[in-house]
Amino acid sequence: MNQVICDRIAALRGVMKENGVDYYLVPTADFHNSEYVDVYFKVREYLSGFTGSNGTLVVSEKEAGLWTDGRYFIQAENELKGTGITLFRMLEEGVPTIAEYLAENMEKGQTLGFDGRVVDTAFGKKLEKALEEKEIHFAYKKDLADKVWGDRPELPCHPVLVLDEEICGQTAAEKMDAVRRVMAEKGTQALLLSKLDDIMWMLNIRGCDVECNPVALSYAFLTMEECHLFIQNGEVTDALKQTAEKYGIVLHDYHEVTDFLTDYSYSGKVFYDSRYTSYAFYKTLSEKAETVDGKNPTEKMKAIKNEVELAQMKEVYLKDSAAVCKFIYWLKKNVGKTEITEFSAAQYLDHLRSEIPGYLDLSFPTISGYKENAAMMHYEATQDNHKVLGPEGMLLVDSGGQYIGGTTDVTRTIVLGEISDEIKEHYTAVTMGMLRLSDAKFLYGCTGRNLDILARGPLWERNIDYKCGTGHGVGYILNVHEGPQGIRWRFSEGMEETVLEPGMDVTNEPGVYIEGSHGIRIENVMVIKNGVKNTDGQFMYFDTLTFVPIDLDGIDPSIMEAGDIRRLNNYHKEVYEKMFPFMNEEEAQWLKEATREITR
Amino acid sequence: MNQVICDRIAALRGVMKENGVDYYLVPTADFHNSEYVDVYFKVREYLSGFTGSNGTLVVSEKEAGLWTDGRYFIQAENELKGTGITLFRMLEEGVPTIAEYLAENMEKGQTLGFDGRVVDTAFGKKLEKALEEKEIHFAYKKDLADKVWGDRPELPCHPVLVLDEEICGQTAAEKMDAVRRVMAEKGTQALLLSKLDDIMWMLNIRGCDVECNPVALSYAFLTMEECHLFIQNGEVTDALKQTAEKYGIVLHDYHEVTDFLTDYSYSGKVFYDSRYTSYAFYKTLSEKAETVDGKNPTEKMKAIKNEVELAQMKEVYLKDSAAVCKFIYWLKKNVGKTEITEFSAAQYLDHLRSEIPGYLDLSFPTISGYKENAAMMHYEATQDNHKVLGPEGMLLVDSGGQYIGGTTDVTRTIVLGEISDEIKEHYTAVTMGMLRLSDAKFLYGCTGRNLDILARGPLWERNIDYKCGTGHGVGYILNVHEGPQGIRWRFSEGMEETVLEPGMDVTNEPGVYIEGSHGIRIENVMVIKNGVKNTDGQFMYFDTLTFVPIDLDGIDPSIMEAGDIRRLNNYHKEVYEKMFPFMNEEEAQWLKEATREITR
Repeated sequence: MNQVICDRIAALRGVMKENGVDYYLVPTADFHNSEYVDVYFKVREYLSGFTGSNGTLVVSEKEAGLWTDGRYFIQAENELKGTGITLFRMLEEGVPTIAEYLAENMEKGQTLGFDGRVVDTAFGKKLEKALEEKEIHFAYKKDLADKVWGDRPELPCHPVLVLDEEICGQTAAEKMDAVRRVMAEKGTQALLLSKLDDIMWMLNIRGCDVECNPVALSYAFLTMEECHLFIQNGEVTDALKQTAEKYGIVLHDYHEVTDFLTDYSYSGKVFYDSRYTSYAFYKTLSEKAETVDGKNPTEKMKAIKNEVELAQMKEVYLKDSAAVCKFIYWLKKNVGKTEITEFSAAQYLDHLRSEIPGYLDLSFPTISGYKENAAMMHYEATQDNHKVLGPEGMLLVDSGGQYIGGTTDVTRTIVLGEISDEIKEHYTAVTMGMLRLSDAKFLYGCTGRNLDILARGPLWERNIDYKCGTGHGVGYILNVHEGPQGIRWRFSEGMEETVLEPGMDVTNEPGVYIEGSHGIRIENVMVIKNGVKNTDGQFMYFDTLTFVPIDLDGIDPSIMEAGDIRRLNNYHKEVYEKMFPFMNEEEAQWLKEATREITR
Repeated sequence: MNQVICDRIAALRGVMKENGVDYYLVPTADFHNSEYVDVYFKVREYLSGFTGSNGTLVVSEKEAGLWTDGRYFIQAENELKGTGITLFRMLEEGVPTIAEYLAENMEKGQTLGFDGRVVDTAFGKKLEKALEEKEIHFAYKKDLADKVWGDRPELPCHPVLVLDEEICGQTAAEKMDAVRRVMAEKGTQALLLSKLDDIMWMLNIRGCDVECNPVALSYAFLTMEECHLFIQNGEVTDALKQTAEKYGIVLHDYHEVTDFLTDYSYSGKVFYDSRYTSYAFYKTLSEKAETVDGKNPTEKMKAIKNEVELAQMKEVYLKDSAAVCKFIYWLKKNVGKTEITEFSAAQYLDHLRSEIPGYLDLSFPTISGYKENAAMMHYEATQDNHKVLGPEGMLLVDSGGQYIGGTTDVTRTIVLGEISDEIKEHYTAVTMGMLRLSDAKFLYGCTGRNLDILARGPLWERNIDYKCGTGHGVGYILNVHEGPQGIRWRFSEGMEETVLEPGMDVTNEPGVYIEGSHGIRIENVMVIKNGVKNTDGQFMYFDTLTFVPIDLDGIDPSIMEAGDIRRLNNYHKEVYEKMFPFMNEEEAQWLKEATREITR
């Protein structure tokens, strides 16, 4: 029996009773529906012991259930042992959704409690609909966890960074004006911005309240004349005060936002994005004003990088690529000679990045997977749990950094010794796909769906697929996963398809993942550019930012088309030219060999 | 001045006055919103003199206007000269739509007249909405043209053909049951089927009331127990009577359908497809019963060919391909020696087809375009207007037949002599695209959008596009254009995207169209098949039905990848093997040379 968890659930039930709550719901989110959340928000993990990144806990007097998705079934089973919590395997046949479960189990007139600040509007509305008939009372202002979690950490709070306008390309005033134009088009007078990276983008500031994501916990409330920024007092710096004064931004404490939205004298409609606005704020706004639900206007503006940002990124990607080159050289030279593990290799690479001028943070925890570990797409080696590398097989390293000047994301799969012919074929096919997509020419109007088959085709020809998209957008000194652009062959519900606009950046990362055997992923970041325009339309192409050799030890030229070989040789020629200045003599010698021209 | 047309418009205005109609609207459609219509339905052409395939005439006391699309602006300008009819260029800036025009010009309480049987529901509803404020009265039961058009031809009326069930793979009873299952799923008790090819498919009958489309004017009204077929008495044969008796199909005269729908005792909801149901019937149904608008259940069933149909099609495509092979041989041998024109060449090919056992009709009027005429996608040479072919340039021939056993559609562009390097490059790129798409492997779930770039890519790489889809479905002894499947890179409003299902057939016809210079199109028909199924999903591929050489005189191997050359050689090897048995000695010798292996 897991006494710790049982005690916590029991304590929660006690507080529920005191508060007249029959069912209590704990999702995994912060107040902004961010992709990654700080430990302060890991209430579900504290209460259930389940550490996966996705899961929702529902507790009633008699039962406790945890919903999670297929990635985590095995892990959740293990972690929930002895807790008395039932695992609900999402999307499996016969397993009710949370809404269905509540609708079936709750009795008429009962009370459902949750912290409405960590439930997004869309989910809250779904619950409303499902529980309407049972006349369930929503006690959505109940953060009961706070009463149970004795040693709960503080909310993260770090001073924000005000970016030099010279590296932003646009002032906060210009950005706010652009947003206001969209607000006007939508017939709205105000906008509540809850999405952290959108706020950071609009105001040219950065934070460090979420690991690897340079964002500060905040809200922005923009009207045609005013801008209100809600941010913890401990984050406010002199630079921020100066910016605020310069652009007429009114600073408020982060925790004042609820009262502000409740007491504000609204005139006209309020724009909000239900994907990121909490249910609690949706309720407040709906009570006080007419609302318009739509995509944050900042989303697409942020996705299309301006010329200044693109110039900065080009520089940053060169330096970041150089670090990866140096890492590969070091790894190939030393493997089998000194002890290197998945974990220590990642540490070495992280160290190389940290020495790059302008380095702020990693853009995500480095993935370093050896042999069959690489078949797990989101594997993370730890100090206590890792493989030792030897002069055989392959190491997949997916990594990136946050710098003043850009956010990077790059994957290389490094051949450490003998690999089978089958693995070589897979490696070559992934390379072919990655380079064919890089080399695509297409008409304006295409989305990632039109192009995905270029990357995936060489694998599909071999009856192999990878169970994820081919590419995602990347932030500018912001989150490594950024929408709305992407490259994937199909879109599940809620995903959106976006026309690829010039200036958007996108990753290109096909892969092969054979469970228990090997994993291969090769990833570059590319920028979408305008090409020739003629009577047939505006042609487009990709400009690659990443310059790291693709391991020729994994390549079998005999299965490549002449075009594939040309593309690889051209890429390697550019890698050599661009990386040579960063290499020492030894490294340069290796680089020359690593980027040599190949033939059939 | 065009006295004939002026008189007709004047006569119409007279009848309008008698009937209290202020504005009269004449679209281009039959009662079933068919793609092609019989001369009986060409009222707009009779009244305006404009012969294009798309156009709507609006006449008021003071003005007459004709709306048509970009394909026809020049033609319409010429044909409308001296008629007093104003041309409205659809989609051009500042040009009102018909609904906008009526909303602006009609006075409150006026009457808009039209024949509600030739206006589809969607357009009728749009007019309702646009004219609501002006309280316009809709006199939709007015076929005023009938009173003006003195020598109007009779409705086409030909005896129907009852297909041998052995070539259908399913009996009419089985098909009706399948349709009823979908009706039940939708919670409906009855279905009004207006789309002609869907009715033909369900009842395993064919007609010849529309040129090149083996359909009979008819309606079907299906309930859970009954099936009512409305068809002109002159079309009813003994075989049809026997089928009707066997499957309990009640035969009614075609013209009784309106009274039937008005007087029927409905129980439960009625299913209809607003894309093909006339506004008049929509009004009748809406008054009498609760209706459900949805895609005809027959559409997808008809699109997925069964094993028997596919076997028949394989045979028919071989014979049809052989006719095209013989034609190409004849053309290449004789061009420049005897006089051959675009028109006589088409006649010769049509003649070869007509000699194939089971031949019923062409599947569309043969397109035969020489040199720059081929750049017009839907060019039709006539007895009076055609080019003479010489031993230079290229002839594009797009053609097909209707046979007992299938409907064909094939395009080849035949090199008759010298062509420029640029044209050769275009020819080769079109060939590469066609064969790359043919060779695609993809996962179940893909639509034509995922695959289009395979065919279009070699052209996009050269900054060239073709302004149409890459492929469409083909009927089985039915219309040569059949939905819902298709291959195109983007979908405009109203088009639908359909997952490619095993058994669907689709054309593959990339092209290059350079105005005033040349046109190239190469088209095969393919069937979608299931390939390997594994944990990554169900892989799919295409099986080609068409076997006609691609003119090697147009091919420049130096710009092809090894894979392109391999695909072309493999295809030609199969062409030779499959066509050889159909060729005489001379032809076989030519075929061998025409399908020879090429190298770089």
